[in-house]
Amino acid sequence: MPETPTSARKSNLAPLLDGRRRVVIESVFPEVDGGRFAIKRVVGETVRVEADVFSDGHEVLHCMLLHRRQGDRAWLETPMEELGNDRYTATFVVGEQGVYEYTLTAWIEPYATWARGLGRKVEVGQDVSLDLVAGADLVAAAAERATGVDAGALSTLANRLRSEEPIAVPVELALSEETASLVGTYPDREHATSYERELRVVVDRERARFSNWYELFPRSAAEEPGRHGTFADVERRLPYVAQLGFDVLYLPPIHPVGRTMRKGRNNALVPEPEDVGSPWAIGAEEGGHTAIHPDLGTLEDFRRLVAAAERRGIEVALDLAFQCSPDHPWVSEHPEWFKHRPDGSVQYAENPPKRYEDIYPFDFESEAWWELWQALLGIVRYWIEQGVRIFRVDNPHTKPFAFWEWLIGEVKREFEEVIFLSEAFTRPKVMARLAKLGFTQSYTYFAWRNTKHELIEYFNELARGRQREFFRPNVWPNTPDILTEYVQHGGRPAFVTRLVLAATLAASYGIYGPAFELCENRPREPGSEEYLDSEKYQLRHWDLARPDSLSELVARINAIRRENRALQSDWSLVFHHTDNEQLLAYSKSDERSNVVLCVVNLDPYHRQSGFVDVSLAHLGIGEGPFQVQDLLGGGSFLWQGPRNYVELDPGVLPAHVFAVRQRVRSERDFDYFS
Amino acid sequence: MPETPTSARKSNLAPLLDGRRRVVIESVFPEVDGGRFAIKRVVGETVRVEADVFSDGHEVLHCMLLHRRQGDRAWLETPMEELGNDRYTATFVVGEQGVYEYTLTAWIEPYATWARGLGRKVEVGQDVSLDLVAGADLVAAAAERATGVDAGALSTLANRLRSEEPIAVPVELALSEETASLVGTYPDREHATSYERELRVVVDRERARFSNWYELFPRSAAEEPGRHGTFADVERRLPYVAQLGFDVLYLPPIHPVGRTMRKGRNNALVPEPEDVGSPWAIGAEEGGHTAIHPDLGTLEDFRRLVAAAERRGIEVALDLAFQCSPDHPWVSEHPEWFKHRPDGSVQYAENPPKRYEDIYPFDFESEAWWELWQALLGIVRYWIEQGVRIFRVDNPHTKPFAFWEWLIGEVKREFEEVIFLSEAFTRPKVMARLAKLGFTQSYTYFAWRNTKHELIEYFNELARGRQREFFRPNVWPNTPDILTEYVQHGGRPAFVTRLVLAATLAASYGIYGPAFELCENRPREPGSEEYLDSEKYQLRHWDLARPDSLSELVARINAIRRENRALQSDWSLVFHHTDNEQLLAYSKSDERSNVVLCVVNLDPYHRQSGFVDVSLAHLGIGEGPFQVQDLLGGGSFLWQGPRNYVELDPGVLPAHVFAVRQRVRSERDFDYFS
Repeated sequence: MPETPTSARKSNLAPLLDGRRRVVIESVFPEVDGGRFAIKRVVGETVRVEADVFSDGHEVLHCMLLHRRQGDRAWLETPMEELGNDRYTATFVVGEQGVYEYTLTAWIEPYATWARGLGRKVEVGQDVSLDLVAGADLVAAAAERATGVDAGALSTLANRLRSEEPIAVPVELALSEETASLVGTYPDREHATSYERELRVVVDRERARFSNWYELFPRSAAEEPGRHGTFADVERRLPYVAQLGFDVLYLPPIHPVGRTMRKGRNNALVPEPEDVGSPWAIGAEEGGHTAIHPDLGTLEDFRRLVAAAERRGIEVALDLAFQCSPDHPWVSEHPEWFKHRPDGSVQYAENPPKRYEDIYPFDFESEAWWELWQALLGIVRYWIEQGVRIFRVDNPHTKPFAFWEWLIGEVKREFEEVIFLSEAFTRPKVMARLAKLGFTQSYTYFAWRNTKHELIEYFNELARGRQREFFRPNVWPNTPDILTEYVQHGGRPAFVTRLVLAATLAASYGIYGPAFELCENRPREPGSEEYLDSEKYQLRHWDLARPDSLSELVARINAIRRENRALQSDWSLVFHHTDNEQLLAYSKSDERSNVVLCVVNLDPYHRQSGFVDVSLAHLGIGEGPFQVQDLLGGGSFLWQGPRNYVELDPGVLPAHVFAVRQRVRSERDFDYFS
Repeated sequence: MPETPTSARKSNLAPLLDGRRRVVIESVFPEVDGGRFAIKRVVGETVRVEADVFSDGHEVLHCMLLHRRQGDRAWLETPMEELGNDRYTATFVVGEQGVYEYTLTAWIEPYATWARGLGRKVEVGQDVSLDLVAGADLVAAAAERATGVDAGALSTLANRLRSEEPIAVPVELALSEETASLVGTYPDREHATSYERELRVVVDRERARFSNWYELFPRSAAEEPGRHGTFADVERRLPYVAQLGFDVLYLPPIHPVGRTMRKGRNNALVPEPEDVGSPWAIGAEEGGHTAIHPDLGTLEDFRRLVAAAERRGIEVALDLAFQCSPDHPWVSEHPEWFKHRPDGSVQYAENPPKRYEDIYPFDFESEAWWELWQALLGIVRYWIEQGVRIFRVDNPHTKPFAFWEWLIGEVKREFEEVIFLSEAFTRPKVMARLAKLGFTQSYTYFAWRNTKHELIEYFNELARGRQREFFRPNVWPNTPDILTEYVQHGGRPAFVTRLVLAATLAASYGIYGPAFELCENRPREPGSEEYLDSEKYQLRHWDLARPDSLSELVARINAIRRENRALQSDWSLVFHHTDNEQLLAYSKSDERSNVVLCVVNLDPYHRQSGFVDVSLAHLGIGEGPFQVQDLLGGGSFLWQGPRNYVELDPGVLPAHVFAVRQRVRSERDFDYFS
């Protein structure tokens, strides 16, 4: 870099270092909050970067996208392509887990600018003899920068441009693609502009993007009614979970449950002696967040469960609920981590006038916040040591953002493969911030998006909005806290509809079972989203063999998800027009090799029919008929053109999940399908 | 600020300084490129700032907008109001020219959070005696921070909350507005979050926003044909310019014109001996950019012109055309500031295959770039010393962006009142960058936006797009370089239409006269935007007294602009629906006290009529009839409701410029107007 005059350095223009740096780089995308946060990808995905790049004048520019793994010194460079309107683009692939960095650099190409001018002058018959000498000088300068064979080739080239041959010869040489390429290989980057920021990509493993979650309460997993379930019971449940096609088994907190202020069945304030309390009231004399509820088994049992699940391709996910029951050992060991009331008692959780007296929140404003942070990180580290790599984080929005950013950063620096799911059902900006600061996946508003308009608006935002760069949705039709009116009233057909929507609209989804597949939909009271006899406060016994169970349908939809890469990512989602407000149509595709088109009847009560107007371009369909094969209900149809008739009966099956294929056109096809 | 543990500082989280800083501030608006560039305002205007502000949990927050003049130490604080969805807003007024800074800070209000909870608990009849003690502690802490009388008042308050009075008494006290306000006056800001950036506002004088430009060639200002005009002639022209209502008189370059490679009439390559050449071929043996063309007069004459103009409320604006004729003294004095061709000659301007051999551009990639920059700044300083405060900058997009940012910054640091108009008719991002980096006003694409759709789209972008924060449009229906097809073919009615559009759509506009008011529209050749016998290459003599001159109309429209503040700013523009593709309707308002509604017939050939559907809310009109008074054509109409009939004949007057007033409703009004 040439020296900058002192007075320039002292002048008003801080960003100025070199007055000859003429190229400007701005409006880089993706870039989250001016580079404050990273974007997210999974291994093997592509990052497509765009930027506005221009200089004064009418010069030919060369723009490079730079990327590297964090920690590497050398950048890998990719030339960027011009899109028009001064916009450039290039892509890079993130091949490994961890953090990548990317930035841009651009410079003026005097030779290319010169050659373009030469071409135009030659076209109109101007004398270019002097131009050729100027071009030769540029080539000679490139020769100075070149090494090896190319240095010689460029010197020769420079001499030939200066030669006395008939002018058409050097002109042709100057304008040839080989010359452009050879000279362009040795650019003068002394005054190149580097984009002022290095942006980051957090690269996760594929499960961060495509995951199938099943939540169950281990204590309800006993085969015989009334007995407290154990890890061994859960282990015996694994074949069932595997058969259903899930790859993440999420367990609510497995720790000792507090006794003080324990909640009874249906959230009763005064429990019966046999009541088991809420697993989220963590900690008792047996231990806290690193202890295991004695009735569930031992650490050994837990590790065996994790290993057994792994053999079936299932990962066990734990709940990180950073709060304590009044009996948690830390309440007495670390009173400084809790707020105290004027009478000396510890402040329980409250959202006035609601009180949660079985829960003590941590005081993140404690003078001892740093020790608290480390202790909480210690909990995560402990379970990672036991083989856990996925955490569902309970109510992250009630702990400081800075804490999560630090904790997730610390964990992922050491264990890149760890996945954190944010359970924040709260205001949109808070949810977005949690995703930005590092949560791998986020719960969504899906459960409350039921109409066609709501679903289209919300999933367009999730799949196309700018926040998709960091917010990975994980959609759940039900959870232990969420029993929506839609399934309360719509019953079994509503469960089926919500299952199909979740499993085909989103690459990551989950159900809370066996409540879901057994269509559990009795609310604690009218207007409540709480279950009657909720497992949160009592043991339940589920009859998995019930003939009306949705287990086979769940298994089928998960098999479809496994077999169709189109359903394993979110961004390709496109909605198609239908002429019926109860019919929702959409498709997803995997670079066109796999295209899935869904049509869902949103009305759980009535048969609905209508015409679907598909965008053939989005389906990758050209002229002529194409086959849609119903992967869910079976049957194939030969469709022709964009407009086709559909009829769906919620009593039978409220959805088509079509694989779309352009057929080789032949009369036989018509015979066969029509 | 409390100490940060070293290990936290060393951790992955650079922005983390204090784990107890729980509030987050993001998505601040306005903010240009992450604070890299300033927004713009004029003296007396308001800056409305918005931001997303939230913390974890459900705390009550307090957000402050901070602003100050650059150089002041103390910030002025304005509490921000919540808009919903975690968005906050506040405004501040920029009272003086120069640079202002603004930023934000926010903190959690434990007392307000506590009081809200108290209220809810009291509502459902919970025991709050312990809560009151906790509240008293918060008040006592505020007392510690308070000074003077308030400290005592807060101590007393704390004691009363702890008192043994019937509980309703301290509860009422705790929940009173006075208490909230008193406690809120002494917040604990130890863990307040400050927004990480200080943003800037460049505050210009009012003319930066509202200006009326008139361009004329001094050498064509002689009263008798054939004589080279002088500054004295221009001085004699001032009453005319003032009568037309202009307040900026822009003169093309006034410097000696080069002789080498001088262009002849109509851009002929070989001039006649008497040809005067292009004023943009700056520099001859008489001098360069600080010299005056001897035929125009002396520096003394120029200063007298500037002073005479000032007495009439007119500012003289000069052209900054940073380029040289081959005869410019710098060509020999500073050969290092120019590019040289292989034969040793200086490289003339070219855009192959076009050549401009009468022009030598500066070489901004010169090793001596810093000296060149200083010399160019010296030119600006020189003319400022002669009393010039407005510069129209010729082709800024052919000089480096960094150069302009530096030059404008240097000038405005010393002379806040200087206005720079960017004459960059080029790609949108280049124009935006020039505005961002500091140009006060910018030429636009207005001349080429002629259809209803084009005008609505473009002016919505200018008046509502995010770039309005830094891009101040100055619209010209013609310039010496721009004679559009629309006026070539549409003749006088087209000139009128374009005049009205420019003067009412934009707060700053200009015309190149007397060509404009005399409807000069003969192109050099078919398809060209160049004038036949262009003043760029020859003297012209204009008959200002021609009966078909638009001078009276120009005077009237400029008087309307002066008298209607609605037309003096850009952001209030709203388009209204019409049922005729040739009728464009729009309004502007000045905080409702002044509302102007325009309806323009875009068809210069035919009478057009139709219904205008005005948005009454935007006009500030309630129920009942309202008066529209045509400020341009005269006449008043009583309109009722949104839908009203309009008919415009281009042969008479193609536009209504209505002042809109809600009438006091009375029968007499109806009688009078109908």
